[in-house]
Amino acid sequence: MSSPKPVLVVAGFGAGGGTGAAAARAFAKEGYTIALIGRRAGETLLEELKNSGADVRVLPSSRYRLMNTPPFNQHSKIFDPNIHPHNTAFAPRYITLAMASWKPFLDVTPEDIKGVTETNIDGAFAFAHEVITEFKKNEIDPTTGKRGVLIFTGATASIRGNVTTSAFSAGMFALRALSQSLAKEFGKQNIHVAHAIIDGAISTPLSRERRKNPEWEQNEDVRLSPEAIASTYIHLAKQERSAWTWELDLRPAHEKW
Amino acid sequence: MSSPKPVLVVAGFGAGGGTGAAAARAFAKEGYTIALIGRRAGETLLEELKNSGADVRVLPSSRYRLMNTPPFNQHSKIFDPNIHPHNTAFAPRYITLAMASWKPFLDVTPEDIKGVTETNIDGAFAFAHEVITEFKKNEIDPTTGKRGVLIFTGATASIRGNVTTSAFSAGMFALRALSQSLAKEFGKQNIHVAHAIIDGAISTPLSRERRKNPEWEQNEDVRLSPEAIASTYIHLAKQERSAWTWELDLRPAHEKW
Amino acid sequence: MSSPKPVLVVAGFGAGGGTGAAAARAFAKEGYTIALIGRRAGETLLEELKNSGADVRVLPSSRYRLMNTPPFNQHSKIFDPNIHPHNTAFAPRYITLAMASWKPFLDVTPEDIKGVTETNIDGAFAFAHEVITEFKKNEIDPTTGKRGVLIFTGATASIRGNVTTSAFSAGMFALRALSQSLAKEFGKQNIHVAHAIIDGAISTPLSRERRKNPEWEQNEDVRLSPEAIASTYIHLAKQERSAWTWELDLRPAHEKW
Amino acid sequence: MSSPKPVLVVAGFGAGGGTGAAAARAFAKEGYTIALIGRRAGETLLEELKNSGADVRVLPSSRYRLMNTPPFNQHSKIFDPNIHPHNTAFAPRYITLAMASWKPFLDVTPEDIKGVTETNIDGAFAFAHEVITEFKKNEIDPTTGKRGVLIFTGATASIRGNVTTSAFSAGMFALRALSQSLAKEFGKQNIHVAHAIIDGAISTPLSRERRKNPEWEQNEDVRLSPEAIASTYIHLAKQERSAWTWELDLRPAHEKW
Repeated sequence: MSSPKPVLVVAGFGAGGGTGAAAARAFAKEGYTIALIGRRAGETLLEELKNSGADVRVLPSSRYRLMNTPPFNQHSKIFDPNIHPHNTAFAPRYITLAMASWKPFLDVTPEDIKGVTETNIDGAFAFAHEVITEFKKNEIDPTTGKRGVLIFTGATASIRGNVTTSAFSAGMFALRALSQSLAKEFGKQNIHVAHAIIDGAISTPLSRERRKNPEWEQNEDVRLSPEAIASTYIHLAKQERSAWTWELDLRPAHEKW
Repeated sequence: MSSPKPVLVVAGFGAGGGTGAAAARAFAKEGYTIALIGRRAGETLLEELKNSGADVRVLPSSRYRLMNTPPFNQHSKIFDPNIHPHNTAFAPRYITLAMASWKPFLDVTPEDIKGVTETNIDGAFAFAHEVITEFKKNEIDPTTGKRGVLIFTGATASIRGNVTTSAFSAGMFALRALSQSLAKEFGKQNIHVAHAIIDGAISTPLSRERRKNPEWEQNEDVRLSPEAIASTYIHLAKQERSAWTWELDLRPAHEKW
Repeated sequence: MSSPKPVLVVAGFGAGGGTGAAAARAFAKEGYTIALIGRRAGETLLEELKNSGADVRVLPSSRYRLMNTPPFNQHSKIFDPNIHPHNTAFAPRYITLAMASWKPFLDVTPEDIKGVTETNIDGAFAFAHEVITEFKKNEIDPTTGKRGVLIFTGATASIRGNVTTSAFSAGMFALRALSQSLAKEFGKQNIHVAHAIIDGAISTPLSRERRKNPEWEQNEDVRLSPEAIASTYIHLAKQERSAWTWELDLRPAHEKW
Repeated sequence: MSSPKPVLVVAGFGAGGGTGAAAARAFAKEGYTIALIGRRAGETLLEELKNSGADVRVLPSSRYRLMNTPPFNQHSKIFDPNIHPHNTAFAPRYITLAMASWKPFLDVTPEDIKGVTETNIDGAFAFAHEVITEFKKNEIDPTTGKRGVLIFTGATASIRGNVTTSAFSAGMFALRALSQSLAKEFGKQNIHVAHAIIDGAISTPLSRERRKNPEWEQNEDVRLSPEAIASTYIHLAKQERSAWTWELDLRPAHEKW
């Protein structure tokens, strides 16, 4: 009997040009089955991955929405019952949605705060709940010594509040607290939880559109590329039980920090 | 015309034996008018403070509840219009409510998370919104060089997630992010925002009732007394503009950390 | 028999206008005997303190030099045998000396590194060794519950390395590590060790001379005054055993951070 | 003309069973020339690497000693002039030597402090000075976008002082400050400086000899293996300019933290 294929579940893959999509492509090349969860159809990414020979599925949008009305005490599942994850890596991205909340404190509305807490707290807790519950059913992978890997994507605002980030950093600090608590609680069960602090701007279709600055776009010294982030996520997924990482930072060579 | 009396607004004063009540007593001795906001009547504390000659008012419970359904974009006010705070210090306490969420991650319910976010995020943002808005109307106090002081009370879980504190530490990390963001944004307007990390157990009626351990209760080396915390809050309130503190830790002499 | 007078030993008081001198003045007003250790004569400060009625002594310069060739395994003493410290607070300042090392990394010389390690490591370990050894002989003070207080003065560079501070921050990080280790080891013996992170420029004769900017000098929103720092040091010295602080930051209201 | 082979210089490789040796083996497999700097002969490791087909050299012991009497303002070199490093990764290890200093503070001797500062400060500054100076001469590697990688190995004591680690943590904090300062100053020149916090005990000949506990030795959940650390060092060396890491932690799955 062959060993089941590892699965990558990506929560949030945007327009197909960001970190989620890059992770999907990179893990597909490593032989992972890819499961996409997102609000948008992601048809292009789906086709592209299929054409490259990847085994890929899209979890229906309704399931993603459940993440925002935490489903974990109900019997809903974000997992396709046909995808029993053997050794799964996850790459949730919560940054983009929360950026709407970057504003002076007195302009922050209850809706901004709701957006932040639903995405970075309610959604993250719900997603982690589903994921950890599934991981606990897995055998320990003989190569890595792990039952699964859950990677959270943080930001500079995960470790520093600042003048226009009261709401955003509240959410990112909370997400970091969750990831550290999970790492400590479930490490003992060989479930690896990691947290990547992205310190700089990622070159995505959205950020390029905003900047309209080809020089910035082409200069890999000043912005992160999603592919480079994905390659560190693959390293995290492969780290062995005897020396794995909870937290690392990722920034471009010339970033001022 | 005499200078208006400074006001201490305490959000959350529990049963009258905790940090909020101790702060109320200590600031009353310093000549502050005391305004209490709480869900419980606080009749005993109110009487005690009045009998000691303090100027004290209770903000009605309905206003406190508003804090949990953020009022700051409506026209409700947590301040009595007759209490225009000249130079006010605040001592919100959010720990006790959140302790209900101390449990293994997979047992955390959406209600636990809701409790944490409503108290430490929605409530804290709403309270801070009201407070900062009022502070901005104040003249700069000639002695301290400040328009007001907003003190948040944190915990060990503000800087460290742990195996049973995924929800609690998410809330406390978020509160710390808020306080740091506010300190950076409003320092420039001479509004002082501070964050105290309480690292250890406070001796309160509730904690003493739980422990039923007179030895622990009497040994000031092993637990914090609310009065000692309050005396550091008074120091924070008095710090001058040229050298004030955003964050400090407070722990008993024999605490292991 | 009357209780012995508390003693403040100040290691480093510069030209008489900095934090050490301000601490000496402030603690003298609180009734402390002042013992000055320094390389410079400090005649003016000595006269000033005596004229104000303070009990003040200067520990001879040769003893200070011993700190840089750690004396603590020899039988030398930095304490005058006639000053048995009952409840002593210390305010070492190590910043000024180390500023000479602020330069690009490739320009840092072995002499710069020697300056940093002698001052912030060798000197600090030697001073702490003497102080802790004396403190252990003290009775616990009935008011504060402490045998003594040892305050270290840090800087932004204590928690952040930066482009021109490789040597300086190495020393300041090390000093912070020492203070935290001491706080954890000797808290159990009721010896209080604290660490103040000064985040900003202090207005001293030296810094004013360098800047020649009266506007900066007069604007308490943008620079720290030694007197304000000293008033927080007095609060640290008075904190009671049930809730004392290891670390706090101090910065001017308008400081960008 | 062919591109020059990349070189790994390892400062400190102990008895051949630790992190330095594991890094040497792992980078040799990746095609690196290996240059060993150490006080001990390392004949066995040298033979082993040569037999496996690796290009390996030993830098004479006298050069290593120079590191402790910082050579960088003299004209000595730690590099063999025949090894012009094209794209070099370094893995200095400073932990073992400093462990001698783990003792109660009052037992720490000036010799302990000297050991710590010579190894973790003088030695680290000297080594970094040589390395950075060489890196600056390199072309930017077209694959990674880097001129070189300098990896420092830290420990739990790099971020936390504790009751028996006053001297050790002073050295490790200082090393971390140096690595952060270098990362900020030389990132702009495409030199990548990283810092790995090893949080747990590494299985080395020395640590196994001390423990004499085969169960511990065989259980990869409870101790780090040098090979696993080396595999993360290789990932750090390969990270591209657009998203590289200054700091990460490495710990075994079941470590309590």
